[in-house]
Amino acid sequence: MSTLEMARKAKAASILLSDTSLEDRNRALEAMANALQAQGEAIFQANRQDLQEAGDSLGEALRKRLLFDQGKLQDVVAGLHALRKLPDPLGRVTSRRELAEGLHLRRVTCPIGVIGIIFEARPDALVQISSLCLKSGNAVLLKGGREAFHTNRLLAEVIAQATCQAGIPREWLQLLESREEVQGMLSLNDTIDLIVPRGSNAFVRHIMENTTIPVLGHSAGLCHLYLDESADPKMAAAVAVDAKTQGASACNAIETLLVNRKAAPRLLPQVCQALEAAGVELRGDEECRRLWPAMKMATPEDWATEYLSLVLSVKLVEDVKEAIDHINHYGSHHTDAIVTESAANADLFQRRVDSADVFWNASTRFADGFRFGLGAEVGISTSKIHARGPVGLEGLTIYKWLLEGQGDTVAPFAQGQRQYTHREEG
Amino acid sequence: MSTLEMARKAKAASILLSDTSLEDRNRALEAMANALQAQGEAIFQANRQDLQEAGDSLGEALRKRLLFDQGKLQDVVAGLHALRKLPDPLGRVTSRRELAEGLHLRRVTCPIGVIGIIFEARPDALVQISSLCLKSGNAVLLKGGREAFHTNRLLAEVIAQATCQAGIPREWLQLLESREEVQGMLSLNDTIDLIVPRGSNAFVRHIMENTTIPVLGHSAGLCHLYLDESADPKMAAAVAVDAKTQGASACNAIETLLVNRKAAPRLLPQVCQALEAAGVELRGDEECRRLWPAMKMATPEDWATEYLSLVLSVKLVEDVKEAIDHINHYGSHHTDAIVTESAANADLFQRRVDSADVFWNASTRFADGFRFGLGAEVGISTSKIHARGPVGLEGLTIYKWLLEGQGDTVAPFAQGQRQYTHREEG
Repeated sequence: MSTLEMARKAKAASILLSDTSLEDRNRALEAMANALQAQGEAIFQANRQDLQEAGDSLGEALRKRLLFDQGKLQDVVAGLHALRKLPDPLGRVTSRRELAEGLHLRRVTCPIGVIGIIFEARPDALVQISSLCLKSGNAVLLKGGREAFHTNRLLAEVIAQATCQAGIPREWLQLLESREEVQGMLSLNDTIDLIVPRGSNAFVRHIMENTTIPVLGHSAGLCHLYLDESADPKMAAAVAVDAKTQGASACNAIETLLVNRKAAPRLLPQVCQALEAAGVELRGDEECRRLWPAMKMATPEDWATEYLSLVLSVKLVEDVKEAIDHINHYGSHHTDAIVTESAANADLFQRRVDSADVFWNASTRFADGFRFGLGAEVGISTSKIHARGPVGLEGLTIYKWLLEGQGDTVAPFAQGQRQYTHREEG
Repeated sequence: MSTLEMARKAKAASILLSDTSLEDRNRALEAMANALQAQGEAIFQANRQDLQEAGDSLGEALRKRLLFDQGKLQDVVAGLHALRKLPDPLGRVTSRRELAEGLHLRRVTCPIGVIGIIFEARPDALVQISSLCLKSGNAVLLKGGREAFHTNRLLAEVIAQATCQAGIPREWLQLLESREEVQGMLSLNDTIDLIVPRGSNAFVRHIMENTTIPVLGHSAGLCHLYLDESADPKMAAAVAVDAKTQGASACNAIETLLVNRKAAPRLLPQVCQALEAAGVELRGDEECRRLWPAMKMATPEDWATEYLSLVLSVKLVEDVKEAIDHINHYGSHHTDAIVTESAANADLFQRRVDSADVFWNASTRFADGFRFGLGAEVGISTSKIHARGPVGLEGLTIYKWLLEGQGDTVAPFAQGQRQYTHREEG
């Protein structure tokens, strides 16, 4: 089947899926959980095949993500039950207005339609993403990392069959298995409504530059931590170490530490010591190196580099305003944090830093759908429209305007015979 | 100044503008209204020059749109005062959640940033669009139709000066005056956050296909009216005539009339007679022509044609489901309506028609920001994300996630020493 055919089938299914009740969708989520439990052994078997074929070419971290075992199964099943309990994101009336006597307008949430999602070789992500789409009434074209080929194929089969038996149109979930199919998606702007690409900076940019379909996601995660004049050194060190090392390859880890110049002599020694003890390589300018000589020399490129590893650039700034300017200039509008005892400076920072997530006295690593309490996420968006930061159920919905009249026409209003009331209702 | 420089200045201004109070922005709207009143004569003069230069090359309709006289001035001033009274779209807390003890997350509405808007030769649109952007805290790059060159230049000058004197950073509004500048905008995806193109189908498609900046708008307005089995013939005729003729060149006018086959003998004569009396040329298939022989023959292309004139294609369908399928296949997801006495069929139609606006017993011509009571609109969106239908103040905002902690780090949660509470607050 061509990608176009798959997308068309998904589109047809999406119309029916958009018209299912919460009970229908929750029943399908339950069926999904039960089927995954029942097929556990077969799925582990397929996963062992994937692991074997990948061999030693994968590093330890990638093997861990590729692994789908009893523990991962129990996690995704728990996730499905948690998702089932969340309220319906569809059919919510978010505006209700009488336009004129007898003419009533409602704005009602509905699914986006058909979503193409490309994700890394992590089979549990297939379950999370497809269940978020199902709960939000969207059909989905999924393409997972090729290392998870066998696991993904079986998972998609089990999920499609179980949800179909539970009354959902089977073609709501389509699995793509080749790069050509992903490439094929990019031109289907009549059929696919949104693409969510997860992966490397270069890959996400490639997708964004080669389709007119709206894209939600992030290419870079160049996040900052700013230590303000009044920052507590102990808190500063703890937040910096967590934000850099708790998951150094994650998009929400920091790449640059900005330090208030006046406070630097007081803050830098303790903070740098803690970072180096945690294995972080520091790169600073002359000014920083005078305060912490062990630091390597930073070049201008460092301020624009997402290391994705245990390297951190360090720079002194005059005040919170210079920190804001630096972040808005070099950052990727993902997640940035300030450590300060000054509520006024925190407030200024949170108002003016133009990023999806702006944190005060907290690690940037909290930027995550699960940690935010959204259930799970399909990705993190640095787009300025639709959804920003971790994208959960709500980011997978949109709305339509429903007007109910009694044969009303515009002409009498245009001619002054009828007047608009525009009265908010409920 | 190059487009890049203009966009950068707008971006810098947008950060400051995002941090203004409602009072600041309302004061600026008032200053705008006063300055436009005070400069009325000079603006009319500039407009007379535009009208003179356009000469007879413009049709009557376009001249009417280009005209900016005392009546238009009073309309835009009234619009500014109405906009001033609307609540603040910024700083609204749309979610508040305790993630863990002492760790609080808020989702707060904020401006999108820098918006590029391209619009037709209608000077009052410049005032409406820029005032919507100002109220919603966005900087804007404006490009109006070239026929309005002198009027737009003076309007932009008066608005920038008045709002600057009222304390808004002057560079929030930038006027583009050439096609090259519009072309230049398309590559500025680091600086411009959203483009709203208004204009012909081909022009909007050109924009969409030549930028990676998100685009909000619509290329086609291929709208439908479906007359269901139980439709009242009188209501059907009135709604059809209004939806086709009240503004035949508008995007929300209908292009295809679908009629329930069983009801066609009862409905068609009265509806066709009314449409023809209103000057509409009808094009139908064989089946339709048997019932109303005066009709021209339709070709398959007719179902996919946006006439933007007094032509209407007519087609019989078996039932509401076939009508829905036809609309979802041929439509542009803009505005579609049903006339029916059956609440069940209206409900099915409104749930399954995949369009921004889906109306029951009302003319498609109501699809408009002013008629919807949104104050005004920057455009009508057929996108499936962010904003759908008429886009007013709310469509010009997005949100950021603000987290406030006490030095919280992720590590203790990952190690099981701390637990998330995820408690909804207020």
